[in-house]
Amino acid sequence: MHNLEASQLTVMLLSLGLLIGMARLLGELARVLHQPAVLGELLAGVILGPTVFGQISPEWQAILFPSDGPNSIVLHGISTLAIVLFLLVAGLEVDLSTVWEQGRSAMKVGVLGTLVPFLLGLIGAWVIPDMLGRPPGGDPLIFALFLATAMSISALPVIAKTLMDLNLYRTDLGMVVVSAAIFNDLIGFTLFAIILGMIGSHGTGLSIVATITLTLLFAGLVLTVGRSFVHWTLPVLQAYTHWPAGVLGFIVTLGLFGAAFTEFIGIHAIFGSFIVGVAVGASDHLHERTRVMLEEFVSFIFAPVFFASIGLRVNFVTRFDLSLVVLLLVLACVGKLAGAVVGARWGGMPSRQAWAVGFAMNARGAMEIVLGLLALEAGVIRQRLFVALVVMAIVTSAMSGPLMRWVLRQKQPHKLQRVLSPKLFQQDMRATSSREAIHELAALAHQYYDLDIEAVEDLAWQREEIAATGIGNGVAIPHARISGLKEAIVAVGISEPGINFDAPDGQLAHVIFLLLTPRDDPSVQLGLSANIAKMFRNPESLQYVLLSKNFTELLAKFKVLDSR
Amino acid sequence: MHNLEASQLTVMLLSLGLLIGMARLLGELARVLHQPAVLGELLAGVILGPTVFGQISPEWQAILFPSDGPNSIVLHGISTLAIVLFLLVAGLEVDLSTVWEQGRSAMKVGVLGTLVPFLLGLIGAWVIPDMLGRPPGGDPLIFALFLATAMSISALPVIAKTLMDLNLYRTDLGMVVVSAAIFNDLIGFTLFAIILGMIGSHGTGLSIVATITLTLLFAGLVLTVGRSFVHWTLPVLQAYTHWPAGVLGFIVTLGLFGAAFTEFIGIHAIFGSFIVGVAVGASDHLHERTRVMLEEFVSFIFAPVFFASIGLRVNFVTRFDLSLVVLLLVLACVGKLAGAVVGARWGGMPSRQAWAVGFAMNARGAMEIVLGLLALEAGVIRQRLFVALVVMAIVTSAMSGPLMRWVLRQKQPHKLQRVLSPKLFQQDMRATSSREAIHELAALAHQYYDLDIEAVEDLAWQREEIAATGIGNGVAIPHARISGLKEAIVAVGISEPGINFDAPDGQLAHVIFLLLTPRDDPSVQLGLSANIAKMFRNPESLQYVLLSKNFTELLAKFKVLDSR
Repeated sequence: MHNLEASQLTVMLLSLGLLIGMARLLGELARVLHQPAVLGELLAGVILGPTVFGQISPEWQAILFPSDGPNSIVLHGISTLAIVLFLLVAGLEVDLSTVWEQGRSAMKVGVLGTLVPFLLGLIGAWVIPDMLGRPPGGDPLIFALFLATAMSISALPVIAKTLMDLNLYRTDLGMVVVSAAIFNDLIGFTLFAIILGMIGSHGTGLSIVATITLTLLFAGLVLTVGRSFVHWTLPVLQAYTHWPAGVLGFIVTLGLFGAAFTEFIGIHAIFGSFIVGVAVGASDHLHERTRVMLEEFVSFIFAPVFFASIGLRVNFVTRFDLSLVVLLLVLACVGKLAGAVVGARWGGMPSRQAWAVGFAMNARGAMEIVLGLLALEAGVIRQRLFVALVVMAIVTSAMSGPLMRWVLRQKQPHKLQRVLSPKLFQQDMRATSSREAIHELAALAHQYYDLDIEAVEDLAWQREEIAATGIGNGVAIPHARISGLKEAIVAVGISEPGINFDAPDGQLAHVIFLLLTPRDDPSVQLGLSANIAKMFRNPESLQYVLLSKNFTELLAKFKVLDSR
Repeated sequence: MHNLEASQLTVMLLSLGLLIGMARLLGELARVLHQPAVLGELLAGVILGPTVFGQISPEWQAILFPSDGPNSIVLHGISTLAIVLFLLVAGLEVDLSTVWEQGRSAMKVGVLGTLVPFLLGLIGAWVIPDMLGRPPGGDPLIFALFLATAMSISALPVIAKTLMDLNLYRTDLGMVVVSAAIFNDLIGFTLFAIILGMIGSHGTGLSIVATITLTLLFAGLVLTVGRSFVHWTLPVLQAYTHWPAGVLGFIVTLGLFGAAFTEFIGIHAIFGSFIVGVAVGASDHLHERTRVMLEEFVSFIFAPVFFASIGLRVNFVTRFDLSLVVLLLVLACVGKLAGAVVGARWGGMPSRQAWAVGFAMNARGAMEIVLGLLALEAGVIRQRLFVALVVMAIVTSAMSGPLMRWVLRQKQPHKLQRVLSPKLFQQDMRATSSREAIHELAALAHQYYDLDIEAVEDLAWQREEIAATGIGNGVAIPHARISGLKEAIVAVGISEPGINFDAPDGQLAHVIFLLLTPRDDPSVQLGLSANIAKMFRNPESLQYVLLSKNFTELLAKFKVLDSR
């Protein structure tokens, strides 16, 4: 085996550490600002790449992220592996049965939501190729087909995530969107495979027709025979091998083989691992915990390496072309919104819901960037258009959630973690009775909010006298609905000796939440109470929470309980 | 970025798929045969490497696993990354506080268990260097120090796993062994770092003294300041970032930085990630689920790539030297056993326990192989001795568990999964009463075992009449202790309509286990009952299990419940 030298290994480890660390950091920052994590991950690469770091210190940038030589090869290998595994995980999320169940509405959204932007892209690329940045001398047909595909593709992972955040994933609306997006993905990927086949077969010596035939044959076989094989194999592995490692190893191996095959026949590796992912995800024998483990590791350790590495390739400042970005963005949004909204209306959805479907489908997300990069590498597009595609993908993804919330007039779901604050936390409560506890927490809230403390206490106490709010397992949730309040205020206190809140299980309450919620929106209080009850449904939760020594540790433990 | 060509990517994906798939397959096979998984993983490399595949088809072997060129570089990069992450995880398992708690006994075992084999190795290398395969012209001091270190090192991951399998991990014996092994690991690694420092500083231009000083400074700083920083940071990340991804990304990034630093100063990368792992593992803010997720993925997806890649480097047949293997094995076992057993006796342990400590400490496992490979790359040893070291590591690891069980006269722990069999499974029971259910399952057992069926039924029914065996949550465990029985026989049946076994919660039993256990060993029945009760303590378990359509699916679901 050809060994890397010590200095090259040092650079490899350091550059990977920088990429992962920076990408995760900015990814989290993006999340805090309600933006998709991929934005932060791309930004990490932009900072470490020629755009920023390369301007500040070209020598060090060239040492850490050389554009040639062994380290460059290793980074390309690892980032390819990363995107192959990411598409495998994206495939796992596809649930083919959903598409059939949703039937007509989904089909109409899917077909129009793919066809309209596709045609618009095709026409645009044919009529104004220069404005859209067609490379001089490039094949007009291939360029037009690529742009049309790029316009029509959606981003299932981003869409699924947005729907989950809005608590819409398991609704009819959510299922229509997801099924339409799956349809969209499958069509988009097949089109893209055909384009890659047309570009030339990477010297495999296969003709276009052979490549396309093999691609369709591969997808067909994997999704039928392969799918049954996986469905049969998963319980055997789960029963007789180390779990979940046995199943994980099997899925990763299949994904790599699928990727190797599609790369071999002249379309990109990601197509193979995506199809394998779909086949594996179709089996209800795939245990949720296995899927989550693969997903967390791949999405948050591997994928950031890929997305950050994009920023290393392109200078996002010098290649930024405002008019191209705006043109592309308008073309993309008009095509997708028109297709999806008309499709949803045609499928019988009310206007607001139809627009919500449109905004959801409009998110391009990570898929667009992956396809764009492949087109860039194949010479179909140039850096200027690639940068515009990346910006378009990010902007459409970032506006998807807020626009859906706005058109559905939906509020943020009521999560305890979002309303807690270190100010409204009392480590060692002095109260010894429920009345005193309510007073103590209300007084705490009064320090930071303009509340009529006596009215608040009276309301909470009246409520307490109607029915005690000890919910058992050592927790109490006294509460009051207050007119004029815009947002929930939650004060939380810990009582080591415990306070009697008349819980059905007879236990004293050690963790007390005082919920003050808007009077005219009962859903806030109900949502928060349900959230708390869920976290403490397990009797062991109390002991775990009481280990906290400060607010941060408390919040950390709530997060674990909430994710169970 | 320098891009790999399509054919090179194909080879990369295919070769990784083969390495992971084959390594996992043979690793599981080794596990079934009660051997360490690393044996199977190494064997996968031997099969795919020059030893077997290279003999069958040298051309294809050279295409898939070339010894030079971009693919070779990528594989070296990825396998280095794999071992760096594996050592990070190994570091997480180290619990420094245990060493202090166990105090004297552990210290005595640790010191003698390190010193005696070290001296024996040193003397051996000095007196019979040629028989031990010192390379001609090699530095005698460095060779002797390496061999002494190789003799003295233990393998914490293997040892911890063996103790867990034998249910000894949380006992006094287990804690003495683990603390001694931690001591051993830390000393062994420091010695090895010093040897690497002496070999030369990989062209970093640092003197030996500077390298060693920097190494100790790094370890000291990471284990004090770094440890406090991690302890403070973990709850913040858990509270304010996506969990567990935020924490995972943080740990991996730190590990890579640590590895880059130690590689930079002239000792190997694994030293840095190991020390970072120890510092992170020392914090009780590291949530168990985060650790397990990292461990599963790294141990079962990454580590196999590294261990399999070893087989690609060396021909294990032509370089196998029987007399060297035997000599090394004897030297290793005598030194380690003498040191550890005497240390344990000195620490006041009874004879059998002292020998158990010795056999546990004797396992060399993966660490030995890692050190051996580094020595091979640095030219300190040659392939013949490397092969002998690998064999020695595997043999000492494989015999560790069985010898401990033998010297402690311990039986295998009573796990339901080990005694279930597809023959003794009844999918749709006909019985409608508890009496009939016992009859039906006893008759099933009777088909395959030589049992006095009437006596068995009578015993089980008498037991049932004393106190009903419905344990609630839809499960019943009728049982009988039978004289002359050597091993437990368990028949399991599913009843869709349910059978009344007088459970305290009033539920009918849908899953019925008939336990027939040896009369003179009550622990078998108690162990199995406890195992079943644990799996079904959650009311949701029943519905989950009832989804099974055959025995394999049932066993797969039991595995999930058992791991909760």
